[in-house]
Amino acid sequence: MEYETPLFFRVMQYADEADRDVVDMVSGNPDWEPPTALRAGLREYADRDPDAFQYPASEGLLELREEIAARRRVDVEQVIVTNGAGEANYLAMARALERDRGDEILLTDPVYPYYPGKTTMLGGTQRYVATDESGQLEPAAVREAASQETAAIVVNSPNNPTGAVYPESTMAALVDVAEAYDAILVSDEVYDHYDLSGRFTSALGFDSDHRIVTNAFSKSMAITGFRVGYAIFPPGLVADAKRRHMLVNVAGSRPAQTAVLHALRETGPDYYDRNRKLLADRVDTFTDALEAAGADYTEPQGSFYVMARFENFPGTLENTFRLVDEAGVAGMPGNAFGDSRTDWLRFALVTPRLEAAADRLAAYFE
Amino acid sequence: MEYETPLFFRVMQYADEADRDVVDMVSGNPDWEPPTALRAGLREYADRDPDAFQYPASEGLLELREEIAARRRVDVEQVIVTNGAGEANYLAMARALERDRGDEILLTDPVYPYYPGKTTMLGGTQRYVATDESGQLEPAAVREAASQETAAIVVNSPNNPTGAVYPESTMAALVDVAEAYDAILVSDEVYDHYDLSGRFTSALGFDSDHRIVTNAFSKSMAITGFRVGYAIFPPGLVADAKRRHMLVNVAGSRPAQTAVLHALRETGPDYYDRNRKLLADRVDTFTDALEAAGADYTEPQGSFYVMARFENFPGTLENTFRLVDEAGVAGMPGNAFGDSRTDWLRFALVTPRLEAAADRLAAYFE
Repeated sequence: MEYETPLFFRVMQYADEADRDVVDMVSGNPDWEPPTALRAGLREYADRDPDAFQYPASEGLLELREEIAARRRVDVEQVIVTNGAGEANYLAMARALERDRGDEILLTDPVYPYYPGKTTMLGGTQRYVATDESGQLEPAAVREAASQETAAIVVNSPNNPTGAVYPESTMAALVDVAEAYDAILVSDEVYDHYDLSGRFTSALGFDSDHRIVTNAFSKSMAITGFRVGYAIFPPGLVADAKRRHMLVNVAGSRPAQTAVLHALRETGPDYYDRNRKLLADRVDTFTDALEAAGADYTEPQGSFYVMARFENFPGTLENTFRLVDEAGVAGMPGNAFGDSRTDWLRFALVTPRLEAAADRLAAYFE
Repeated sequence: MEYETPLFFRVMQYADEADRDVVDMVSGNPDWEPPTALRAGLREYADRDPDAFQYPASEGLLELREEIAARRRVDVEQVIVTNGAGEANYLAMARALERDRGDEILLTDPVYPYYPGKTTMLGGTQRYVATDESGQLEPAAVREAASQETAAIVVNSPNNPTGAVYPESTMAALVDVAEAYDAILVSDEVYDHYDLSGRFTSALGFDSDHRIVTNAFSKSMAITGFRVGYAIFPPGLVADAKRRHMLVNVAGSRPAQTAVLHALRETGPDYYDRNRKLLADRVDTFTDALEAAGADYTEPQGSFYVMARFENFPGTLENTFRLVDEAGVAGMPGNAFGDSRTDWLRFALVTPRLEAAADRLAAYFE
C-alpha cells in the first residue's frame, strides 16, 4: 500500500514473459483511437517554427487553460495544466499538507495505490475509511474519521478500482466535512467521461475554498502517454501550487499540450459517447462471463474496471500469476488496492480481446 | 533569490507590452532549427497505433534510456528520463536531502535561480560560494564552505549566467569534496553541447557514488518546450529517485520522448557543430558591440549568455525596464542571479536579431 514496488509493472512483466498468449487486463490504457483532431494537431505542430518548440508558459498554454476554464466555468487563473493527473494530485496533496492544518490524509479502502505513495513521499500519514462492498463511501464514516489532524480527503469518482460513482449527496457531504475541519477535498475526476450511471457529480458543482479538482485528458482522449492533465485550485491556494509546479517541472510538454488543445476544440460529443458505449458493452460481456463462471463481481457505474471474486481463489499475486499461466488472462491482485479487497482481482476492460478473456475465465472457473 | 516571482516572466511581459520594437534577450530559448529528424520523428509518431499513445515506462522509453546510457557509458539502470533538466535537478536535490546527511545545499553566487528555489521547496537551506569575476569556482572555497551539514553541491558548467566552463581540475576537486563530506555533487550539464572553450569536463568522467549528472535535450536540440531531460544516478541512489519520479509525474510525455529518440539516432555531429559555431559568432558580434559601448563584459566559454556592466547603469529591474524602453533591448537584471552581480545585466544570445541589439546597445551607451 506504500507503493514500494509498482505491482502493475511486475504483473505486466510476468504476462509479457509468459510462454502462452495472455490477454492484458492489467492497467488502464485505453485501446481505442484518440480523437482524429489529436493526430492532426500533432502533425501540424511538427511543422511549426522553432519558437513553437520552446517553453510554454509554466502553468500551461494560455489557450488550453482558457478552454479548460470555459468548460469547467472557473477563472482561468485557477487552472494549472499538469503532467497528467498524477502531477495534479501531487500538487493538490502537497498544497493541502503545506497549509499546516494537520498531516493526515483521509483515503478510501480500497484505494488507488498512488495516493498512499504520494502521502508518504510528502511527509503525511494515511488514514483509511472503508467503502461498502459496492465501493460507495459513507459520508458519516468520513466525518467520523476526520479530525483537526486532517489535511485532505482524497477521493476518486468514477472510482478506480471499484467502479463506484458517488452521488451528489456524497460529494456535497465531503465538501462539508472538508470545510468543517479546515481540510481540503481533493477530487480526482479523471474518469468523468466514463460515467455509465448518469449520476456523476463533479466537486466543482459546490462552491468552496476547500476543494481542489484534478483531471486529465489521458483517459478521455485515450492518451495516457501524453501526460496532459490539470488541477483547479481555489483562488487562495493556486499561487503556491503554481510555484511548486514550476520548481518541479518548469512546464509540461508543449507538443502534447498543443495536440490536446486542438483535439479539445475540434472533437464533438460523438467521440466521447462512442467510447463510453463501447465500455458499457464490454461491462455487459465481461460480467456475463463472470456470472457464467459463478464469480462475485462489481457492476461498475463508471471507470474501466470490474472486480471479481472467484471461489477458493483469493486475489493474491500468486493467483494473479497462476491466472496468467493457466487461463491466459492478466489482472491485478486485489491486495494492491488495500486490505479490504484481498479476495478480489481487478480487470481493466481496455482490450479489444475482451471476449476472449471472458471466455477463458468462464472456461477456467466453471 | 528564493524564486518568489519568476523575474523572467516579468521582464518578458514588460518587453511584450512596450510601445516600441524590442529585441528579446531575456530567456534561453534557442531560435535555431531543431534537428530535421526531430520533426520527422514527431510526424511518424502522430500516425502510430493507439498503443503507442499510452504510458511509456515510468523511467523513460527503454530505447531512449539505452541510447543515453551507451553515449554516456553508464548502466541503463542508472538513467531516468525526466521532464527536462528542471525535474532532473529536482530529483537529484531531493535525493541528496533524503539521505539525511545534512540539509545544506552549496550553491554558487551568481546562481541559476531555480536552484535556491528548489532548495527551499525541499526543506533545505542555501549556502553560497562566490565565484571569481569570470565565474570560475575555486575548489578551496567550496571545501571551506563544506561541512557535515552539506547535503549537496550543485554546479552548472557551462554556466548560466556567467558562461564559465569549469576545468577538469575543478570537477575532480568538487567530486573529492562531495566524497569527503559524504555529500552529493549535482552537476547540471545542460549546456554541454555549447562548450566554446574545448575544455568542458563532465562529472561522469570521475567514478564516484557521490555525484549525480543532470542534462536535457532542451538546449542541444533547441526544444526547451518538449521537456525531455535525464539524470544519471549512482546505482545505490537511483531506486528512490525512480520512485519519486513515478509518484510525482508517473512518466514523461511520450510524443516528446519518441521524437527525441529518433533525433538522437539520426542526427550527426554537423547539427551540433553548426549551432555551436553560430553561438561563437554571436559572442564575437555582441562582445565587439559591448567593447564599442565601453562596457565591461564576460567572454563566455560556453552556454548562451554574456553579462555586461555599463557605467552608472546598475543591473536593477528598473534599469532593465529602462533599457527596454530607451534602447529596445531586453536583458535580465543581474540581481536575479545573486548578490554578486547586481551591477550587471545578462543577455541571452538566442535571437536572430543579435546584430540589431548589439548596434542599439552600442548607440545607447556610447
